[in-house]
Amino acid sequence: MFDERVITRAIVETYLEEFRTIVDLDVAVVGSGPSGLVAARELAKRGYRVAVFEKRLSVGGGLWGGGMLMNRIVVQESARPVLEEFGVRTREYAPGVYVAHSVETVAALVYGALQAGAYVFNGVAMEDVVVRDGRVAGLVLNWGAVHAAGLHVDPLAIHSRAVLDATGHEAEVVRKLAAKNGVSLTVSGERSMWADRGEEETVALTGEVYPGLFASGMAATNVYGGHRMGPIFGGMLLSGVRAAELIAEALGS
Amino acid sequence: MFDERVITRAIVETYLEEFRTIVDLDVAVVGSGPSGLVAARELAKRGYRVAVFEKRLSVGGGLWGGGMLMNRIVVQESARPVLEEFGVRTREYAPGVYVAHSVETVAALVYGALQAGAYVFNGVAMEDVVVRDGRVAGLVLNWGAVHAAGLHVDPLAIHSRAVLDATGHEAEVVRKLAAKNGVSLTVSGERSMWADRGEEETVALTGEVYPGLFASGMAATNVYGGHRMGPIFGGMLLSGVRAAELIAEALGS
Amino acid sequence: MFDERVITRAIVETYLEEFRTIVDLDVAVVGSGPSGLVAARELAKRGYRVAVFEKRLSVGGGLWGGGMLMNRIVVQESARPVLEEFGVRTREYAPGVYVAHSVETVAALVYGALQAGAYVFNGVAMEDVVVRDGRVAGLVLNWGAVHAAGLHVDPLAIHSRAVLDATGHEAEVVRKLAAKNGVSLTVSGERSMWADRGEEETVALTGEVYPGLFASGMAATNVYGGHRMGPIFGGMLLSGVRAAELIAEALGS
Amino acid sequence: MFDERVITRAIVETYLEEFRTIVDLDVAVVGSGPSGLVAARELAKRGYRVAVFEKRLSVGGGLWGGGMLMNRIVVQESARPVLEEFGVRTREYAPGVYVAHSVETVAALVYGALQAGAYVFNGVAMEDVVVRDGRVAGLVLNWGAVHAAGLHVDPLAIHSRAVLDATGHEAEVVRKLAAKNGVSLTVSGERSMWADRGEEETVALTGEVYPGLFASGMAATNVYGGHRMGPIFGGMLLSGVRAAELIAEALGS
Amino acid sequence: MFDERVITRAIVETYLEEFRTIVDLDVAVVGSGPSGLVAARELAKRGYRVAVFEKRLSVGGGLWGGGMLMNRIVVQESARPVLEEFGVRTREYAPGVYVAHSVETVAALVYGALQAGAYVFNGVAMEDVVVRDGRVAGLVLNWGAVHAAGLHVDPLAIHSRAVLDATGHEAEVVRKLAAKNGVSLTVSGERSMWADRGEEETVALTGEVYPGLFASGMAATNVYGGHRMGPIFGGMLLSGVRAAELIAEALGS
Amino acid sequence: MFDERVITRAIVETYLEEFRTIVDLDVAVVGSGPSGLVAARELAKRGYRVAVFEKRLSVGGGLWGGGMLMNRIVVQESARPVLEEFGVRTREYAPGVYVAHSVETVAALVYGALQAGAYVFNGVAMEDVVVRDGRVAGLVLNWGAVHAAGLHVDPLAIHSRAVLDATGHEAEVVRKLAAKNGVSLTVSGERSMWADRGEEETVALTGEVYPGLFASGMAATNVYGGHRMGPIFGGMLLSGVRAAELIAEALGS
Amino acid sequence: MFDERVITRAIVETYLEEFRTIVDLDVAVVGSGPSGLVAARELAKRGYRVAVFEKRLSVGGGLWGGGMLMNRIVVQESARPVLEEFGVRTREYAPGVYVAHSVETVAALVYGALQAGAYVFNGVAMEDVVVRDGRVAGLVLNWGAVHAAGLHVDPLAIHSRAVLDATGHEAEVVRKLAAKNGVSLTVSGERSMWADRGEEETVALTGEVYPGLFASGMAATNVYGGHRMGPIFGGMLLSGVRAAELIAEALGS
Amino acid sequence: MFDERVITRAIVETYLEEFRTIVDLDVAVVGSGPSGLVAARELAKRGYRVAVFEKRLSVGGGLWGGGMLMNRIVVQESARPVLEEFGVRTREYAPGVYVAHSVETVAALVYGALQAGAYVFNGVAMEDVVVRDGRVAGLVLNWGAVHAAGLHVDPLAIHSRAVLDATGHEAEVVRKLAAKNGVSLTVSGERSMWADRGEEETVALTGEVYPGLFASGMAATNVYGGHRMGPIFGGMLLSGVRAAELIAEALGS
Repeated sequence: MFDERVITRAIVETYLEEFRTIVDLDVAVVGSGPSGLVAARELAKRGYRVAVFEKRLSVGGGLWGGGMLMNRIVVQESARPVLEEFGVRTREYAPGVYVAHSVETVAALVYGALQAGAYVFNGVAMEDVVVRDGRVAGLVLNWGAVHAAGLHVDPLAIHSRAVLDATGHEAEVVRKLAAKNGVSLTVSGERSMWADRGEEETVALTGEVYPGLFASGMAATNVYGGHRMGPIFGGMLLSGVRAAELIAEALGS
Repeated sequence: MFDERVITRAIVETYLEEFRTIVDLDVAVVGSGPSGLVAARELAKRGYRVAVFEKRLSVGGGLWGGGMLMNRIVVQESARPVLEEFGVRTREYAPGVYVAHSVETVAALVYGALQAGAYVFNGVAMEDVVVRDGRVAGLVLNWGAVHAAGLHVDPLAIHSRAVLDATGHEAEVVRKLAAKNGVSLTVSGERSMWADRGEEETVALTGEVYPGLFASGMAATNVYGGHRMGPIFGGMLLSGVRAAELIAEALGS
Repeated sequence: MFDERVITRAIVETYLEEFRTIVDLDVAVVGSGPSGLVAARELAKRGYRVAVFEKRLSVGGGLWGGGMLMNRIVVQESARPVLEEFGVRTREYAPGVYVAHSVETVAALVYGALQAGAYVFNGVAMEDVVVRDGRVAGLVLNWGAVHAAGLHVDPLAIHSRAVLDATGHEAEVVRKLAAKNGVSLTVSGERSMWADRGEEETVALTGEVYPGLFASGMAATNVYGGHRMGPIFGGMLLSGVRAAELIAEALGS
Repeated sequence: MFDERVITRAIVETYLEEFRTIVDLDVAVVGSGPSGLVAARELAKRGYRVAVFEKRLSVGGGLWGGGMLMNRIVVQESARPVLEEFGVRTREYAPGVYVAHSVETVAALVYGALQAGAYVFNGVAMEDVVVRDGRVAGLVLNWGAVHAAGLHVDPLAIHSRAVLDATGHEAEVVRKLAAKNGVSLTVSGERSMWADRGEEETVALTGEVYPGLFASGMAATNVYGGHRMGPIFGGMLLSGVRAAELIAEALGS
Repeated sequence: MFDERVITRAIVETYLEEFRTIVDLDVAVVGSGPSGLVAARELAKRGYRVAVFEKRLSVGGGLWGGGMLMNRIVVQESARPVLEEFGVRTREYAPGVYVAHSVETVAALVYGALQAGAYVFNGVAMEDVVVRDGRVAGLVLNWGAVHAAGLHVDPLAIHSRAVLDATGHEAEVVRKLAAKNGVSLTVSGERSMWADRGEEETVALTGEVYPGLFASGMAATNVYGGHRMGPIFGGMLLSGVRAAELIAEALGS
Repeated sequence: MFDERVITRAIVETYLEEFRTIVDLDVAVVGSGPSGLVAARELAKRGYRVAVFEKRLSVGGGLWGGGMLMNRIVVQESARPVLEEFGVRTREYAPGVYVAHSVETVAALVYGALQAGAYVFNGVAMEDVVVRDGRVAGLVLNWGAVHAAGLHVDPLAIHSRAVLDATGHEAEVVRKLAAKNGVSLTVSGERSMWADRGEEETVALTGEVYPGLFASGMAATNVYGGHRMGPIFGGMLLSGVRAAELIAEALGS
Repeated sequence: MFDERVITRAIVETYLEEFRTIVDLDVAVVGSGPSGLVAARELAKRGYRVAVFEKRLSVGGGLWGGGMLMNRIVVQESARPVLEEFGVRTREYAPGVYVAHSVETVAALVYGALQAGAYVFNGVAMEDVVVRDGRVAGLVLNWGAVHAAGLHVDPLAIHSRAVLDATGHEAEVVRKLAAKNGVSLTVSGERSMWADRGEEETVALTGEVYPGLFASGMAATNVYGGHRMGPIFGGMLLSGVRAAELIAEALGS
Repeated sequence: MFDERVITRAIVETYLEEFRTIVDLDVAVVGSGPSGLVAARELAKRGYRVAVFEKRLSVGGGLWGGGMLMNRIVVQESARPVLEEFGVRTREYAPGVYVAHSVETVAALVYGALQAGAYVFNGVAMEDVVVRDGRVAGLVLNWGAVHAAGLHVDPLAIHSRAVLDATGHEAEVVRKLAAKNGVSLTVSGERSMWADRGEEETVALTGEVYPGLFASGMAATNVYGGHRMGPIFGGMLLSGVRAAELIAEALGS
């Protein structure tokens, strides 16, 4: 027979054990959109201790709704292999233009990241960063529910050798770092839509924006003022791959 | 080069094609929690045309937050095979007590349902049912965004040979049917927690509550006044399996 | 007998067919107040493919309430012919001062635009513009309901040879273009009321504010800092006529 | 030159003159959806003094959004002549199934009612009825803005020989009458969707529900528990025609 | 016997007659706190056509609550005669320190202003000013309920030879004028509390801030950065007297 | 020179002295609309210790807005003397139909009550009654601000030989008494409008509804189900006079 | 030097250790007002494992605000020893009437309970009870923040040999038990104020309301319909003492 | 027997007596977090007349929730004596790292401050300061409920020889002083987290920021841009001690 006490203990203990583990990370990814999940998987596959923090209960960010609530997304030829590696089915709509189901994409990306060994903390919000001698060295965390309820509760902090801002349009980590530390980093904001150019820029702009802090996907685009691109996601996926490469390079083995 | 017009047309046309298809369903599942997704997969595997409708953008319902925001759930030995079939990893916490990651569970369940051929319409809310000669014969749908924004917009309707209410505690389809048609169906509401008993009841109570309308998971429990059980999900998963069996039986081939 | 499936298919298919058509426009009008509707009709009559996008479900903007909820508006002699062409009845209150019913005016303007062949997409919001090589080349659209509900859903985009900002006091298109692209366009805001002067200015200020982007009515007044004029609408109507002329000139046949 | 004082006086005086006129009506129509506007036009054509009261600024109710925001509606062969009389274009989608633009329909209906001589008071809410010796004898009115702002302001009242409840699903006038006067009138509420049957019922149920008070369209359906029918509007239009006939009969010349 | 139609007509006609009258004013007072009501009474006594506009339904502004909800206010010896002229009872608390009931004060001030012949329009908000050749020449008005309900409705305008900003801390008229017309008028905001000095300053700072626009009471204090003074009202009362003198001087007979 | 400490002490001490006094009342009037203020004045004139409690900061209830924001009210010949006694000017609109300014009426009524010796506590809400041996024996009070802010703060109580419910449509005191004490008192609610009959009923229904508790004005009408009457106030005024007579009779000298 | 990781681990681990402990309780107290805290201390002193659950972050319930925000409470001679045992200073206002500072009272009560060995879980809400064979056997808990934010997250459950409902006016545990389990327990609600009688009743009514579930303080009063008593707290304190005695008796050693 | 009138008088009179006393203070502490309460106790022990003002009903600020709702805080060796002096139990987690219960800490701090003779006014908000000749000389106060309810009510003021801003992150007193008086004081805001350094800075930065105005704890950190430190409170406690020393020095005996 099942006892409620066992259920409670099972959940509390396994969660806490994991929480205790991630107090020391190699990479902390903030945001669970496509570039963050792809980067998390790539890094976990290379053996890094990586965790994704998402303030909402559900992961996937703006991916769920496809375009105007029609749950489909588009990817180009160049990015299709990334989707395929995660097991997402695509269908060719026009030469080089592939369509995927947005819900299948979210599910496969987060499933893939978890299976590769990444940690995923949903319902946990980044409140601030830890700064140490001119370098981002960790995250200050709180329950997303605490923020949503407007409560005044102190956060907890963890350390991380690198932080990836994958928060999308908001570039929340970069903004927080800049606003609180007199750092001369401005988030330029995205330019109006130009799908073609935006797709290239999001990969090209992916990189380290401050010692210890990297940006990918729309966060990268927003930091440097690239063009937005709408419901086409090839650039996002490739930006996640690129971010993982750059972080791995920076961290060394 | 990528043109925004192509992206727009690709999304609109593939979505529309699917929407046109589901105007005629074998089974319409309302709600995307565990019992609904399991049932959808089972039915799709048997060749039925089945679609899941979820009013929120993200699927998974209350599964994401585990217990008190600690993203873990518990399942018993008897239900572990269901999780394994979907590819969800479990870990034995105590004899016969398995723990799984709540995010991995959501991702795997919806991914599995989609891969089996079920349709998933997120962001689409059930507003009412279609009734024909004393039988539930379809659903009245609207955008979840229209409801969330409090707008007054007419819905659209589809036909379905069977409808499964997998909306959890609310038992929304049953309530709507009862409230609007003078049907003597009362939603008793769940009883206070008794995990052990609740797990058994949720499977036993799964069934057809009105011609054409079935209930599974917490919806079934709430219709008949079973006990709630908290973050243990074996009963939910098995209820989904059971609902699929009963619906298949009712529909015939 | 009438089947719900036929109704659903009839609506979905005719709407989507039209949506597919307007992915390529000659002129996209944002806002459905008097200057936008007049311009749309003039352009449609000349054979251009023109669509009006209105974020609210109802068109007409601030026209409905007349002055302080008294549903009447005033026009001058010079603008009365425009109202008459649309079939709006006017009554002379004083020499050269005509009064019309505000509800009749909205109804006749939108009816006239539709009959002339313009497309009207109500409930669809402009979220951004498409920019191509220093030129406004289209619109980024989303459901108004998505914005009203505060959801995070990707938009879709269309192309248009010209865009008309007829969003009234907000000059939303101009503001969006300026805010996101480092364009040195400032929306000066309207000056306090001077009915007489405001009426002249709104026509005089109507024009192209950036390659591919025109402004009419109060949007034009707000971009250049003209005077507001209250519930007198001659200037608005004539500004719509003027905008159509200037756009036609710019587009050529 | 145009003087703001003249504009103000023109609006205030023409509105107030009309307001003074409608203190004594033949028919007060509450609600500006299709059945209300059709009835108003029919009655005005027959020479009755009729006014439509709409609490929102815009008229048309739920018509604007078509089905799920796709701005189209459907009508049957039998009701198409009504739309044609108002000048609404229809297109045959399938044999006997016609599609119209929802915005064109709203515009044409209200324009037609006004041209026929009906008064339209938008932004004015029904707050209660006037009852005299067991008979509805008028309306108690207030600004819709006063209600929306939650202010406590006394209403004003007018007299009317007949009142038509065309408030749609809410059946607001019937509810108000029943709730406040111990009248044994219950609003049964609509039944779940059955388009075919609902269309017939809405016309059949149109009629006098209490001395002096008539109900049409969805209000009639809701009073007597007919089926809802979704975005097909033939029944609504014919119900308006029927309501006008019955009221004319009741009033005599 | 009393007929509702007579009541309606009595109210509509007497209000309208007054509204028509005030389209042309000598002085428009915005705000119904102590300085505005005192000024209105003084000006009405001298024969000017003066009207007070108050956006809320109740007049009196912040006077009602006394100090921290204790409904008393304090005045000095020098200002006591003003209160006495209005019939407000005072009681000496300490030498030269008089206490009055805050509710009695509001009631007496507005009663006195009305009896002297001033018009009072409560529930009517100033939305903007009328500017003519570098001079404030009137007000743009709307229902307070329209603003409170967030509706988009055009205002109406009136002319006035002088306008008095008696809106208290907000100095709303001055702010509106400055914000919309590029006028180099800044509202400095009040300084922290210094009761003694604030009392003197509020009278000294009362005056014409722009051709045609005067400020009194806390509005004057806020324009020029004087000290706030809390629940002592001598300065307010004397500022109203002073404003009336200055306006009378400016207008001539 | 004026010192903030003196101002603070003056207000706190005079208010508290009065608060201490009213812990023992002859009559506690809840609500500050016309019937409450008239009754308070009549009772104070006869020498009773009477206090009016109003939860809002401003007194006067729904009187301010006249009819549909047009600040006028109507009274009949029979009630005009009451207004005149308070110094309210009236103007004859039709034989026996008098119009008064709604703002002047509020001001004069509260001024008159205060001058006659009644206490007025605005911003103080009735939270409950004090019951002693089957008799209403006092009031339970709290700051209106505490209720408005949704705070959980204990109230304070006072004793009173009689309580008058003058809270208007809500009949708040009667409802509270009935809801909390198993008293078989139902508030029937007002009937729809019939001005003529309502005017008579409101006076006739004024009286003691429970030992120690009287009701006047719309509260009396609502307790017994009389007709509402709109912006005509003769009945209200005469009901206040009647309530005072009945209470005086009940209390004896 | 201090490392953020150590701080995080210190907090997480000590909290978890305590959470794991309270999965098995002797007594679970819901609500942290005076009767709950007094009972918790008495029970802890006797050696029982007792925990207090409070949904808000701060404990003390409605005690903080004293009477109408004046931070004082009153106790009688009989209850003064309880306050003194906690170290709360009292001052005699009249014979047998003692006044204490409300903030000092909250602080001393919770400090005393903690020092005696009771556990206090603030920010943790009771969501339901655990029922086993007709007996309350535990609590279903969730973060208060999850409820405040309106999130849908599963709770966790604990076992307890007895549960004390000390939730005040709401009697939340009793209501939840009754509403969900068909138990014929009605919460009568408190009667209007009678301080004297209420003080006696609250102690007399303290007791076991259902097998395993006790009620104290205002919860007991509300279950059985006793009188409310306002800011006098002797009854509350003595009710806590009484509840502890009865629970100890029921549990045995 | 207990009479409600006695309870009311007891509370009103004892509160008033205290309110009258604190119109003249030596030190006014704004905010009731750890540094404010420690400073208040130290100053009271030295014989100064000191009062703490807290806008919320409950004191303790952000202390209650510990870290991420786990109700524990950390202190270092150096600050442990402060906690011990207040009677807070600590437990050594690691060498030099002590853990305390957050609820016990709040309770003990405020209890200690009160016992030492400090006044505590909860539910009372600082609205502004009193400035006299370039020196902060007092506070402008209002009910927290008045602010929370958004009411417009005048405040009351008191005098104080020194004011301590202990409002935490907001540094509310400093901001108010700077914003309203043209004082060149900028609140730099805290830097991102660096626990070790933040702990030292908060003590070092404690001091007089403007004649008569001191800042402690996070308010001091925010004024000068020190690092935030999370749920470690040694620096806060020592900052309170330091503030008391500096204020005592400034005031002399």
